[in-house]
Amino acid sequence: MADLTAALFFAEMRFDPKNPQNPESDRFVLSKGHAAPILYAAWAEAGAFDRSELLKLRQIGSDLEGHPTPRLPFVDVATGSLGQGICAAIGSALNARRIGSDYRTYVLLGDGESAEGSVWEAADVAAMDKLDNLCGITDVNALGQSRPTMWQHDMDQFARRWRAFGWHAIVIDGHDMAAILGALDEARATRGQPTMILARTIKGKGVSFVEGKEGWHGKAFKKGEELDRALAELERHFVTGPGADIDLAQRIPKPSASGRPAPQPKPLAPPSYTLGQEVATREAYGAAIAKLGEADPRVVALDADVKNSTFSEKFEKVLPDRFFQNFIAEQVMVGAAMGLAARGAIPFPSTFACFLTRAADFIRMAAISNVNVKLAGSHAGISIGEDGPSQMALEDLAMFRAQPNYAVLYPSDAVSAERLVAAAAYHPGPAYIRTSRPKTPVIYSNDESFPIGGLKVVRSSNDDVATIVGCGVTLFEALKAHDQLKAKGTTVRVVDLYSVAPIDADALIAAGRATHGCLITVEDHYAGGGIGEAVAAAVAPAGLTVARRLAVREIPRSGKPEELLDRFGISASHIVEAVLAAVGSAQEVRR
Amino acid sequence: MADLTAALFFAEMRFDPKNPQNPESDRFVLSKGHAAPILYAAWAEAGAFDRSELLKLRQIGSDLEGHPTPRLPFVDVATGSLGQGICAAIGSALNARRIGSDYRTYVLLGDGESAEGSVWEAADVAAMDKLDNLCGITDVNALGQSRPTMWQHDMDQFARRWRAFGWHAIVIDGHDMAAILGALDEARATRGQPTMILARTIKGKGVSFVEGKEGWHGKAFKKGEELDRALAELERHFVTGPGADIDLAQRIPKPSASGRPAPQPKPLAPPSYTLGQEVATREAYGAAIAKLGEADPRVVALDADVKNSTFSEKFEKVLPDRFFQNFIAEQVMVGAAMGLAARGAIPFPSTFACFLTRAADFIRMAAISNVNVKLAGSHAGISIGEDGPSQMALEDLAMFRAQPNYAVLYPSDAVSAERLVAAAAYHPGPAYIRTSRPKTPVIYSNDESFPIGGLKVVRSSNDDVATIVGCGVTLFEALKAHDQLKAKGTTVRVVDLYSVAPIDADALIAAGRATHGCLITVEDHYAGGGIGEAVAAAVAPAGLTVARRLAVREIPRSGKPEELLDRFGISASHIVEAVLAAVGSAQEVRR
Repeated sequence: MADLTAALFFAEMRFDPKNPQNPESDRFVLSKGHAAPILYAAWAEAGAFDRSELLKLRQIGSDLEGHPTPRLPFVDVATGSLGQGICAAIGSALNARRIGSDYRTYVLLGDGESAEGSVWEAADVAAMDKLDNLCGITDVNALGQSRPTMWQHDMDQFARRWRAFGWHAIVIDGHDMAAILGALDEARATRGQPTMILARTIKGKGVSFVEGKEGWHGKAFKKGEELDRALAELERHFVTGPGADIDLAQRIPKPSASGRPAPQPKPLAPPSYTLGQEVATREAYGAAIAKLGEADPRVVALDADVKNSTFSEKFEKVLPDRFFQNFIAEQVMVGAAMGLAARGAIPFPSTFACFLTRAADFIRMAAISNVNVKLAGSHAGISIGEDGPSQMALEDLAMFRAQPNYAVLYPSDAVSAERLVAAAAYHPGPAYIRTSRPKTPVIYSNDESFPIGGLKVVRSSNDDVATIVGCGVTLFEALKAHDQLKAKGTTVRVVDLYSVAPIDADALIAAGRATHGCLITVEDHYAGGGIGEAVAAAVAPAGLTVARRLAVREIPRSGKPEELLDRFGISASHIVEAVLAAVGSAQEVRR
Repeated sequence: MADLTAALFFAEMRFDPKNPQNPESDRFVLSKGHAAPILYAAWAEAGAFDRSELLKLRQIGSDLEGHPTPRLPFVDVATGSLGQGICAAIGSALNARRIGSDYRTYVLLGDGESAEGSVWEAADVAAMDKLDNLCGITDVNALGQSRPTMWQHDMDQFARRWRAFGWHAIVIDGHDMAAILGALDEARATRGQPTMILARTIKGKGVSFVEGKEGWHGKAFKKGEELDRALAELERHFVTGPGADIDLAQRIPKPSASGRPAPQPKPLAPPSYTLGQEVATREAYGAAIAKLGEADPRVVALDADVKNSTFSEKFEKVLPDRFFQNFIAEQVMVGAAMGLAARGAIPFPSTFACFLTRAADFIRMAAISNVNVKLAGSHAGISIGEDGPSQMALEDLAMFRAQPNYAVLYPSDAVSAERLVAAAAYHPGPAYIRTSRPKTPVIYSNDESFPIGGLKVVRSSNDDVATIVGCGVTLFEALKAHDQLKAKGTTVRVVDLYSVAPIDADALIAAGRATHGCLITVEDHYAGGGIGEAVAAAVAPAGLTVARRLAVREIPRSGKPEELLDRFGISASHIVEAVLAAVGSAQEVRR
């Protein structure tokens, strides 16, 4: 990789080592993140920081970590889970189009990495989008972590795959500097398709006793004779004299003509729904991103061939240039969103919530990058009905709640959906918006505000014997239960937990204390990692717990939504039962 | 799809409609699970069940769900999340080799589905494994859910991709029965590589007013004129007379010569570790699967180019024929394991626990299939040290706990690791085993048993003021804290929660009650969905909660393991502090 990296950093890329975030700079993504040391060495050599810092590699006090993270100003997205960097690079390349810049994006992959399916999702999307501002380089060194790679040095295996996927592929000797520079020139001159440079390399090149040998993956030379011998061999290749001095300054990109003023989003009009109007939150989501997109040029939307279900088609209709169709490829959709976000866009990728699990590892890496992606998952829970369990997201809240820095938002009506879309957009860091399939009535007035980290008490009286916490479709079951109980003379508090994370612990504790410590949760989600556990964790410091946690507790099946809510224990009648049982046993304890 | 399905069911496949699980039967996987109605129609037509059942499609009382699940005896794995069926089909094809059967596996994919990266992971693995007993058919109907597909009817786009990936590809008119049968013949005669039949089809073929039209995805004809007209048009194509009667009986596969006796696993010798011996649980895992594999021919292992880290290489060394290397492609690894399990194998796929998130959607579908996969994730948590956050699994327990039917096992020493591997193997349904990177001392004697759903109280006295629940590396931090507290005159109970799910609620409640209700959890995992929340949920019915939940609460970084345990709040000193604070505040409350 030393030769490839040297060519990129010291002959090809236009960038400013002192200001790596210059919006006109070429981008470099190290998709094979485990090669971090050479990335750090290149940036140090370019002058981004002092070489002495390199000796702190992997130490707790240094940002030069085992794999790159955006703690470093020259890293756009964290890498180290393979096959993700190339997806982010697509986002970076799409962003150049969005802002009208001619910066180029380079991404360096491993040959072993190319077995990841996400690489081929990326290959399809980049070719379809004709991203000729994207240049990949595959370091074909033939050795994986544990053994030789699948295709080793059979370069044709790689070339025919990339060509079949519509890329311009160039096979070179990755240690021939003239060939590397020639290929980079050829890539820059190629129009209408991305280029993949397939570089045949020898792992450990230049150090005779490790060249092409297994067993050296991630291993440092032993200090002493071994290291000395390796260094002595490498130093023999040093070039001095004419041509050895590189003037990076001449390749610092000029500011764009417009100077890239900070975008000025137009003020956003409040929602305009009518109380009682029946609107699915997924549909309100689609309308909301379209409205937001018209007000803010940074907002983009991505979808995975379900735009007519997630309603992201409403965005595409008004802003087709900022809508990216990824077809049925959720990994590249989320990865491209990460790259777009890292370059200043505010991306909303959407699909069925259950299919976001396809991108769980990307969601994890987006957390590590703390990048501004706003994921939207529709068709949450069993309330989708007849399509059956494979289409029902019942673990998405657990997936997002596990990450320590995601805002997890769950609107129940159209007004809260629209407000939460805007809140997510301007929330620093990643966010998730969970929407539902069924139509639900608008219960909030258009001027209601929904700050992230809050909740709404939608029913309360001084005599409430319990607090029911619901979200989405279960909020309406809770409201039905409230009415049924009231008819029997029992009043309960009802809470809409629209912000599952961060969670309003104080308000939950207050509600719990005001209702004899009797908290009941009801969620269209599995029990593990869901709303019941979230609320229980929030109220535990006050010595409270959740008395009854209504959740889906087995693998569901096809059926009508209302049948399923009842069969799997989260309908109004189950809430009524839970309240009566909890209040009864609490009274017994008090007696 | 009607023509393709008719050819498969009534001319090509050898199967027994009355006994779909006959081990010699050809397998059919409907990877495009949303086409379930035709699958059900074909099996009904073949005589598997009465046609009248078809009218119960998608009703709550019927197993004919919106997408196929193994509730139906002729469905091996649930499909409906695209790109998974082809991975399971690889497992089915590998299983034929394992048992020495010549059954063939057929898998029907959609063209839109082919954008999923997992399809190309499968393509690579099937070609590498030369699975000529596997035949794919892609229904290229050019229409996705929301719009025309990426490549529509450009058949060369498909052919060149499959050929580049090493498959024998045949392009046909998918409505030409002679061409379909010819292609199936050609596939059967092809040696050394899998075949993909690329069938150009027209969606809605035979019904003039919907043929090739958008807007009919997942839509039924309206009863009345619309339906009548469609049926009338279709009935015109019915074939009667000579050749129209199909004799399926002649294609029922004969039992194998050996009659496939139920495998008789040899008795498993107990572990043979020494108390105090330092062994990483990941290494004990590798040794355990090798030992188990030698005793039971159903056991197979899969890995994703990290066999030297997960130690699955110990299995490969003794049982190379039952070890499947999937290179860096976690989706196909887990998908193939699902297919193997559905055909009677007991597969152990392993990789770094964080990279199992790559297969989260497969893990979800394995839950829906309730299939016998035994996933192993190594390198859990921040205790891996310098490699940094991208390599640390801190959300894997949340991912597996969310599913209602996974056994989630977390050994702390080598003896429990070996015992839990065997327990997982013979546990009906899916299981997850979480192992750690650092070496830990053996604390259990070799005859100790570890039933799933249990826990171990490893320290207890009559004066315990609190219960500390740990697992893996944090169990040893808890033991250190125990000793430090004891030196100061405070004794605590220490619990090893080796079975996170199912969880031993009774024992946790008993421990909590015996220690003044003071429960403290400590986990090498994020807080959301982890051990703290699991324990809190388990003890809530007794009115108890978890007083202090020590967990990783921010994105971690590179550093030495012990530095990280301390910095992110899960080391012995944090446990000591938590105990003293919890006991102090409890005493205040009691005062």
